[in-house]
Order: sequence, then structure tokens, then C-alpha cells
Amino acid sequence: MSEGGKTSVTAEVARFALAEARIPDEVRRLATNHLIDGFAVMLAGATEESGALVREHVRELAGNPRATVVATSLRAPTQTAAFANGVAAHAFDYDDTQLATDPKSVYGLLTHPTTPSLAGALAVAETLDTSGKALFEAYILGLEIECRIADAIAPRHYQEGFHSTATMGVFASAAAGARLYGCDLETTLRAFGLAASMSAGLRENFGTMTKPFHAGRAAENGVLAVHMARRGWTSAKNILEAERGFFRAAGGGYDADKIIGRLGQPYFFIEPGISIKPYPSGSLSHPAQDVLLELVTQNDVKPEDVERVDVGVNSNVPNALIHTRPTTALEAKFSLQFQMSIGILDRAAGLAQFTDEKVREPRTAGDARKGLRLRRPGDRGAGLQRDAHEGRDHAQGWP
Amino acid sequence: MSEGGKTSVTAEVARFALAEARIPDEVRRLATNHLIDGFAVMLAGATEESGALVREHVRELAGNPRATVVATSLRAPTQTAAFANGVAAHAFDYDDTQLATDPKSVYGLLTHPTTPSLAGALAVAETLDTSGKALFEAYILGLEIECRIADAIAPRHYQEGFHSTATMGVFASAAAGARLYGCDLETTLRAFGLAASMSAGLRENFGTMTKPFHAGRAAENGVLAVHMARRGWTSAKNILEAERGFFRAAGGGYDADKIIGRLGQPYFFIEPGISIKPYPSGSLSHPAQDVLLELVTQNDVKPEDVERVDVGVNSNVPNALIHTRPTTALEAKFSLQFQMSIGILDRAAGLAQFTDEKVREPRTAGDARKGLRLRRPGDRGAGLQRDAHEGRDHAQGWP
Repeated sequence: MSEGGKTSVTAEVARFALAEARIPDEVRRLATNHLIDGFAVMLAGATEESGALVREHVRELAGNPRATVVATSLRAPTQTAAFANGVAAHAFDYDDTQLATDPKSVYGLLTHPTTPSLAGALAVAETLDTSGKALFEAYILGLEIECRIADAIAPRHYQEGFHSTATMGVFASAAAGARLYGCDLETTLRAFGLAASMSAGLRENFGTMTKPFHAGRAAENGVLAVHMARRGWTSAKNILEAERGFFRAAGGGYDADKIIGRLGQPYFFIEPGISIKPYPSGSLSHPAQDVLLELVTQNDVKPEDVERVDVGVNSNVPNALIHTRPTTALEAKFSLQFQMSIGILDRAAGLAQFTDEKVREPRTAGDARKGLRLRRPGDRGAGLQRDAHEGRDHAQGWP
Repeated sequence: MSEGGKTSVTAEVARFALAEARIPDEVRRLATNHLIDGFAVMLAGATEESGALVREHVRELAGNPRATVVATSLRAPTQTAAFANGVAAHAFDYDDTQLATDPKSVYGLLTHPTTPSLAGALAVAETLDTSGKALFEAYILGLEIECRIADAIAPRHYQEGFHSTATMGVFASAAAGARLYGCDLETTLRAFGLAASMSAGLRENFGTMTKPFHAGRAAENGVLAVHMARRGWTSAKNILEAERGFFRAAGGGYDADKIIGRLGQPYFFIEPGISIKPYPSGSLSHPAQDVLLELVTQNDVKPEDVERVDVGVNSNVPNALIHTRPTTALEAKFSLQFQMSIGILDRAAGLAQFTDEKVREPRTAGDARKGLRLRRPGDRGAGLQRDAHEGRDHAQGWP
């Protein structure tokens, strides 16, 4: 890990946010899918219980109606709309996931990048009545910045408890907002100074409404940072790399080689890529769900045939999928126990499965509690086999 | 440093926030002075340039008028008023300072405790139209909680760049708000879970408007945490001590002995105490200002008599009073160079001295740039001597 010496990371990031967008067609094509996915999870997520509470909050705050709370007739101040839409888009844990540039990266350090960038950019674009093209480009550039900052920070950031979608997302929203407002470089540096001083969010809140709250706040705070900077609010202009700045305070350091000269070179969408989620649950659970669903459908496995499910996992899983006995849908997103159980019962892993009712059904809960064994820590990938009454075994996906 | 094992720090803190207040008369007497000081710095601070920008922000947000923006006719949503009043109270860097329970504590880890507690409690108390007694007690208990959390977190928190008034202040505001709303324990635990996920603020922003912004946000976010928790928003209920929670993520750990069983035993106001600032500048600069002002007045020192000022400092000073060539009043608060210069020119160190105009006066700036030598790093306390034309020397305050 090297640190960048005299190169100002913050200035490089701000210049990238503001420069004429030279975005390759391939990036635009990929980003279009992620934009559609982002709006889809935002619309779906607004129907969650958290969405109703957010709308109560928005109504109580009230204020000048500058932007739309998606999926409602409510309009709110720009920053408040960004908050509401950011919460909605992360409410199902169904939004996209950035991959790592380095296969040795610590799992979980990286973000669900579309939500904060899109929620922030959307509220500002609507407030300013910009073109769709301007919104689209601001979203792409904000997302690129967020991904590179997350990729560069030292792994302590994640390991000791910060939630990167929250802590990095604020920079996406600030960058997109500064671009849409046409801020100059100096104003944008101050917006970053403010944004970094609002960067927050703890992983202990995973499996609660406060996880999507983080994403909403990231979007809101990025917008607020731009608004305050435009008013003339002062702040440090080198906040990312400074001695008492973001990378050091939040992570103990950063790897300059992962961000200096890397913005858009190539875009993160191209390499290493950003993944769209097949299931509304923690991404580490997806390989096991893939295999289970294939097994039960191809072999017509009945629930009563199953004695036990063994899932091979790597060593990150127990630290990420922490809810062994979930009692809510949000906890179930981080519970392989629930996911294996419901996969056998319903042969599906969609929004209809991740509900409080399903989690609390005696049959699901009973299965989730008795059946699952995690094994072979240290393995990458996932495998699954069935110990069935009739003696047939299936194994799949082992390294 | 020990960690608390199975004792829930968060639960102990929340219970203290909610319990019947058994506040000794001596604490009430001291707290009365700090409350008056808090209102005084809030009123004065509202006249700063940051106050005008905050009022622009409040007017643009608008919303339901629940509480007063102090020193104005504006009323705003509760959380927004808490923000505005918190910024004002910290705008002059003139609010009070908690002392350390351990003389070996790292300087700077501790907070300016009144601002976030008072700004948060005041906005909620006005919204609910509570008694002054209820406000006063909520302020005292919030402040006690903030001081103990700051005292307990591992020093990395400050050393690597977090600003404790920001990061701890949110708990004062949340505790005071939960008490005033009459929240139950479970709701208060969730408010803490939310508050911790909004705890933020970086020291690189010292000497800019973003430093008081931190204090305002701490007050605002504590109020928001309580509002969301009361709506039923879910969060972790053990956020302070949890494995992926506040103390670990933000500081790498904490000393349980500094918080478990220590809340109100005795109150921080009594021991180690909370200091009211004599000058509107970083508290590490105060001993040198004391000595200088005494020297120049007692000896009738004229500016033209002074060739050079030597100030003995301890090793914390260069890391805290970072602006050797200040160009704004905010930077000058963290500049011994300016403070020695203006002390000789004006024989005072009040609000009239810490202005942009004074800082930029050619005479002050010239003096500040040429004159000061910091010496004897490692010394505690401060000393000062005058090398004057006529050969008289004065030394004072050395250990």
C-alpha cells in the first residue's frame, strides 16, 4: 500500500467529477442497465415498511417542494427527497454491488454503488430540471468516484465496522451534485470537505432499517454538502488525503495506486465490474442460493425429503451473514439458514420470499433453525449436497 | 484499557438518560453557569458569517416551524433549529471544554460538551413546550453521557482525525431528546443505534466553518435519531460496545472502566470538571495568552519594544494550533502566532480581536509571521519572555 505524497487525491477526484464526460459507449450501455435496476429497486423498496416511516418523516419536516419522493405524490426539499429515495433503493438489499480490483481485497469493503449516486443525482437533476443526459452522466461519474474511493481505503475501514455504501456513497452524491450544479473546482473541493465530515454508518446496524437509512443519508448529505459549499461555506480542500482527513481517520490509510490515475481508466463498470443482484439478499449468499434452487428444481426435491443442508462457505461468510435465527425479513437477507430453508419450501428467492411473514412461519423457522451446517471454511465459492432418505446425494460447485 | 465484556454500555447509558434525575445541587449550580455561557456563545456566534449562511439554508429548506433559530425570528423543524443553534454556539470556538479524568489522556480527545447537548435539548424542549427544569436536566444528563463516551473511547479516534465534539455530541443530543420525549428504554437504544450511524466529523476542517458545522450536525442528528426511533425505525440496540459498533469502528476500542459505573459518579461537572473559555480560541492557546496579556499590561510593553516572542509549549501544541500564517478569524483561533501578535497590539483577546479584519491588517500579519518561536517541546504549561530593546527580560509560568 502506497500513499500518494504530494498528489492531491481530492483535486484529482473533483476534476474528474467536473470534466467534460468522455464516457465510452460500452460504459453507457452497462450503466443503462444499472440505472434501470436502480429505479426498479427504488420503486420496489418504497413499498417496504421503512418507506412508510420515511414518508411520515418527510411530511413532518415538510419544506419547499423541490424534488419527488419516488413512488409517491410527495415533493420535498432536494436533500430530503435524496434521503427518501436512497432509503427506498437500498431497502430490499437488492441494489447492485461493485467488485474488487484486487482478488485479495477484503470482502465487504466495497459498496452498493448505484443507490447513493442515483438518489443524489436524481434529486438535484429534478430540482434544476436538467436533461436526462446530464443526470445519466453525473450518475456514472459519481458512481466511479465512489467505487474508487472504496477500493482505495485501507481494509480496517470495513473490518472494524464501517458500512462503505454509507461512508463512500456521500462522495458519489456530492460529486454528481457538484457536476449538475456546474460548480467550479474550488467549490467542489469544499463540498468534498463537507461531505467527508458527514461520512458515517456502522455495520452493526445490518439487518435493521438503519442499513438503508445509511444509503439515504449518503445521498442526502452529498446534496447538503454541495448546497452549503455553493453558499460559500468553508472547509478543508484536501480532505481525502489530509493528515487529519478522511482516509486516515476512517481507515488508517489508503492505497494511492488504486485511485490516482485510475478514475475512468477504465471505468469500474468495465473492469473489475459491477454486479446486478439476482436475489434481494446479501451478495455472499447468492452462490449457495443458485446451487440450491438448481438442485431442488432439477431433482424435484420435496421439503419432506430433506434431512439437512450442508453449505460450503469461505471464511467471510460467518462475519457477513450474521443472522442464524432471523425473525424479520431484513435479518433474513443475512441468513443462509433462512435462505436454504425457504429455497426448499418455495423453490424461489425473490421479494415474495423475503417477508416478515415467511420468516416467522413456523415451518420456515423450524427448518432454518435445525437444518443448516456451514462447512469447509477457507473454501471459495459455494457447494451444496443433499442427504436424502433415498440415499441420492448431489454435490455441486466445489472448487 | 479494559473492555466491558457482557455489560451493555449502551443500555447503561440509555438507563442513565431516562432515570429520575438525582442531580446534586453543586452540579446544578455549575451547570447553570455553563447553560448561561452556552446561550451567550450561541447568541454571539449567530452573528458570524456562518450564521448568515445557515439562515439562508434554513429559509431554503423551510418546513414546519417547531423551534426557534436563536437570535432570529426564524422558526424551523426541530432538527433544523438544533442544527442552526449548534453551529452558532460553536462558531466562535468559545464554548466550554471538558477536562480529562486521566492526566495522561491525549489532548484533544475530549469535547466542547455544552453545545450539542444544549442545542439538541433546546429545540426538542421548545417543540414539546416542556418546563425549563426538564430542559435543564436533559441538558445536564446529555452532557454527562457525551463526556463519558469521549473519555472512554481509544485515543486513535482523535489522533487519526475525528473531531470529538461532533462524533460524541450526537449522543448528548439523542440522550437529551429521548429523555424529553419520554422515550422508553427500547426506543432510546434504537435512537442510539441511529445516532451512532450519523456520528461524523474530521479535524482537518478545523479553522473553517465546517468545525462549527460539526457541532450543529451533532445536535441535529441526535434529534433526528430520536424522531426516527419514535416512528419505529429499527437499529442495533448495543451500538456503543458492539463488535461492528461505534467504539470499535471509530476508535479501535474503549476503556470500559471510564464509562461503566461512572455516569454521574460523580458528575463530570464536579470531577474532573468542565472549563469555561476565557478567550474565543483553541483552549491550548489560553495559558500563553494569559501570560502575554499579564506581561504587556503590567509592564506597559509597547508593540515597538518587542523584537520577538518565545512561547514554551508542550508537544500537543503544533498538532492542534496548526495555522502559523492565518488569513481568517477562524484560522486565527488556532494560531499562537496571531494571538501573541494581537495581544501585544490590542492588549486583549476577545471577540473584537478575532475578526477577519484584524487578522488581515498588515501590521498584525507582519508581526504574526516574523515574531513567534515555539520552544521547549515536551514542557507542560506555558511560559513567555520578552527580548526587549532595553534589555529587560520577563519569564513566567515555566514548570
